[in-house]
Amino acid sequence: MTPKKKAIVLLSGGLDSATVVAMAHADKYDVYALSFSYGQRHSIELKAAAAIAEALSVKEHKTAVLDLRLFGGSALTDDIDVPKDRSEDDMEHDIPVTYVPARNTIFLSFALAYAETVGAKDIFIGVNALDYSGYPDCRPEYIASFEAMANLATKAGVTEDDRVRIRTPLIDMTKAEIATIGTELGVDYSMTISCYDPNGEGEACGHCDSCLLRKKGFREADLADPTRYFG
Amino acid sequence: MTPKKKAIVLLSGGLDSATVVAMAHADKYDVYALSFSYGQRHSIELKAAAAIAEALSVKEHKTAVLDLRLFGGSALTDDIDVPKDRSEDDMEHDIPVTYVPARNTIFLSFALAYAETVGAKDIFIGVNALDYSGYPDCRPEYIASFEAMANLATKAGVTEDDRVRIRTPLIDMTKAEIATIGTELGVDYSMTISCYDPNGEGEACGHCDSCLLRKKGFREADLADPTRYFG
Repeated sequence: MTPKKKAIVLLSGGLDSATVVAMAHADKYDVYALSFSYGQRHSIELKAAAAIAEALSVKEHKTAVLDLRLFGGSALTDDIDVPKDRSEDDMEHDIPVTYVPARNTIFLSFALAYAETVGAKDIFIGVNALDYSGYPDCRPEYIASFEAMANLATKAGVTEDDRVRIRTPLIDMTKAEIATIGTELGVDYSMTISCYDPNGEGEACGHCDSCLLRKKGFREADLADPTRYFG
Repeated sequence: MTPKKKAIVLLSGGLDSATVVAMAHADKYDVYALSFSYGQRHSIELKAAAAIAEALSVKEHKTAVLDLRLFGGSALTDDIDVPKDRSEDDMEHDIPVTYVPARNTIFLSFALAYAETVGAKDIFIGVNALDYSGYPDCRPEYIASFEAMANLATKAGVTEDDRVRIRTPLIDMTKAEIATIGTELGVDYSMTISCYDPNGEGEACGHCDSCLLRKKGFREADLADPTRYFG
């Protein structure tokens, strides 16, 4: 029996990354899930990540601890208010204060280290260029550029037939499409949490960018939204 | 008075990075030095980094804590013997076990976050493509690729006249040239430590790649080597 291909999947505990884990599984990968404790105020998502990793039978789940509060500069890590009820137009055109400087670059760099040590060639990340908050590090051209860099950074890049690939299966999908596919693949979205500003019980605020996009996704997909909202 | 330009300088505590701090100073930058406590066995270099940062009057010095032992795979973080007395030919052609997967990518990603939060456009790293251990993430093509990616990753990359630059002033220099320039700029190399396998007193082994290259540098530059060796 040929051993299964290995994939690193970045797992935040939200709707998108849970769906990506299920998709990588459906593609017959052994999933090595990677989460981050980076000083996020919504660290309750790490509990969701652990539950999802178990429910979706990943091969291994690691959580890297690094404190991005060292640099500050974001509403997700600092004492800055998370914006509520922004319009879709604002989301499309402004980089909001919830942007964490270089976060996806840091996360993908750790994924690259993980990939190199377990011998995985595929790194999955649930970025989305359609229903998203306007972060620069979610754009397709950023991902392509990271992949090019990754192949020069590592032993993998030394031989041509041995390339690392950054896989972004959600990049052109709407939230509704993502929720539909994940539901078909058996993801239990009640386990996931997308909110930037949840309460201590893991209930969602219902008004941050992430909640608004998630609500819209379930509504447009005509699926029941299992999220517990406090607001 | 125009405010001084800001630069992030990666500071390990070794000969190369101390020289880079002095060069950035000579170029009239305010230096924001960044070190990493990443689970390296030679963590005594962090004491050296702090001493150098103070001696060279950096504006700020931060140390990011992250544990790369999470992934393993290197003699610098794991219980794997550091190779001793390798030939120059081996150093040129083999990636040694001291290679830490994706280390420079992770370090530069943190530097990018730091740069974005303090408003620095220049990130200095003391990589060297001549007298080095054969790590893929020290090659000029890797650095160019990281810079391209960095400008798509951040707010900086959104406008064209606002580019982040990865500065590698040592990349084409021999260790002898580096030691000569640093000495001219007043770097006290007795404060630096390059060894991969030092003892608890911060004395160098004298036989790892890093010690061999450093010795050769001082010898060829006809400078007294202030390093304390135990072997």
